[in-house]
Amino acid sequence: MRLRNKPWAREKIETHPQYVVANPAEHKGKWEEVFGNDNPIYIEVGTGKGQFVTGMAKAHPDINFIGIELYESVIVSALDRLIEAELPNLKLLNVDAKNLADYFAKGDVDRVYLNFSDPWPKARHEKRRLTYKTFLKLYEDIMPEDGEIHFKTDNQGLFEYSLKSFSDYGLLLTYVSLDLHKSDFEGNIMTEYEEKFSAKGQRIYRSEVKYR
Amino acid sequence: MRLRNKPWAREKIETHPQYVVANPAEHKGKWEEVFGNDNPIYIEVGTGKGQFVTGMAKAHPDINFIGIELYESVIVSALDRLIEAELPNLKLLNVDAKNLADYFAKGDVDRVYLNFSDPWPKARHEKRRLTYKTFLKLYEDIMPEDGEIHFKTDNQGLFEYSLKSFSDYGLLLTYVSLDLHKSDFEGNIMTEYEEKFSAKGQRIYRSEVKYR
Repeated sequence: MRLRNKPWAREKIETHPQYVVANPAEHKGKWEEVFGNDNPIYIEVGTGKGQFVTGMAKAHPDINFIGIELYESVIVSALDRLIEAELPNLKLLNVDAKNLADYFAKGDVDRVYLNFSDPWPKARHEKRRLTYKTFLKLYEDIMPEDGEIHFKTDNQGLFEYSLKSFSDYGLLLTYVSLDLHKSDFEGNIMTEYEEKFSAKGQRIYRSEVKYR
Repeated sequence: MRLRNKPWAREKIETHPQYVVANPAEHKGKWEEVFGNDNPIYIEVGTGKGQFVTGMAKAHPDINFIGIELYESVIVSALDRLIEAELPNLKLLNVDAKNLADYFAKGDVDRVYLNFSDPWPKARHEKRRLTYKTFLKLYEDIMPEDGEIHFKTDNQGLFEYSLKSFSDYGLLLTYVSLDLHKSDFEGNIMTEYEEKFSAKGQRIYRSEVKYR
C-alpha cells in the first residue's frame, strides 16, 4: 500500500502501550502474562490497517491475536480500530517480522496468518517474500511441532511461488482454494485490500499448511 | 467425454498390434524390445483421442511415448492419428490404468502425464480420481525414485484436490501454473479438450510433482 508520512504516528503508538506492546522481547516465552490467560496465540504477519485481525479477535474471543506491522504510519490505523473496539484479546507489535524469534520462544505462537503479503515479484527479491524458506523457518521456530500457516492473496504469482516453497520445505497442504469467495469456506474475515480487489472481480487464493 | 458405441472398434484395434500393443504384460521390464531402443518412456494415463500424446511424440523423437486408454471407442481415434503419423516412438495400450503394475516393472516408466482426467466430483468417488493416493502409489511402483507426474486440468476442484493429495503423499511440487495459457510455459501441447475449453476462456491449471 502507499505509505503516507504521519509524523505524529510514533507518539500515538507510544501513548498506547496497552495496545501496541512496547518492549515485546521482554515477554518472550511468557505471553500469557500479557493477555492474562493461556489461550492459544495467533499472529498476523503484516497486519496493515488491522481490519482482519480486529475482525478475527471479535469473532474468536477465546483466541489471543497479535497483529505485527512494520510501518508506524499503517499500524496507527490498526491502533485506532483497537482503541474503538477495546478488545482484550488483541495486541499489536510495531516490529520487523524478520526479528520474530526475538519476541517469541518455540511454541509461543500457535498459528501464523499471512494476508496479501507484498509479492516482491522480481526474482532478486525472492528472499523478502514472507513465504520464502527463511521465513518458514522463523515461523517454525516460534510454533509447536504441528503449527499452521494460513495464507491468502490475490497475487497469482505469489500464490504459485508459495505453494512450491511450502512443498519444498516439507509442509503439509491441508486446505487450498483457488477462488475463495466462490468456495464453501466459512468464517472468512476480509482485509481492506481483499474487499477492494474482490469487488473488482479479482480471485482470492487461500491455503493452509501444517508443519510435520 | 461422451462415448459412442463403435462395434467395429475392437476389430480395428486387433488388426493394428504394431500400434496398440496386444499383450502388454509380456513386455513388463523389457519395453526397450518393443521400441527397439532404451530411450526414456513417458506414459499418458487416459490418452483419449490421442492429440496430446501424438503431438508429444512428434515433438520429442528421442522419448518413447505410450498412450493408455480404457475405452475402445475412444482409443480408435488415437489409433487413426497414429496410423496417419507413423510414429516409431508411440504405442497405445487399451487397458485399465488400475492394472498398470501388470504391464510395467519398477523403473520402466520415467514420467506420467495426466491430462484433463475425469474429476469424479462426488466425495464417494474420490478413489477413482487418477491423483488419489492408490494411483500415486501405482505410478511410484513403475517409475524410478525421482519419477515425475505432469498434470493439467481445467477443473478447479480436481486441481485443488490433487495439490493436497500430492502434498499428503510427500511429493515435491516443482512447477505450478494457475493459468497455463497466460504463463511463460513453453512447448505446451494441447489436448482436444484443452483447445475447446480454453477457447471459451476457461483457465487451465498445470503442475509437475516429483517423488522424493
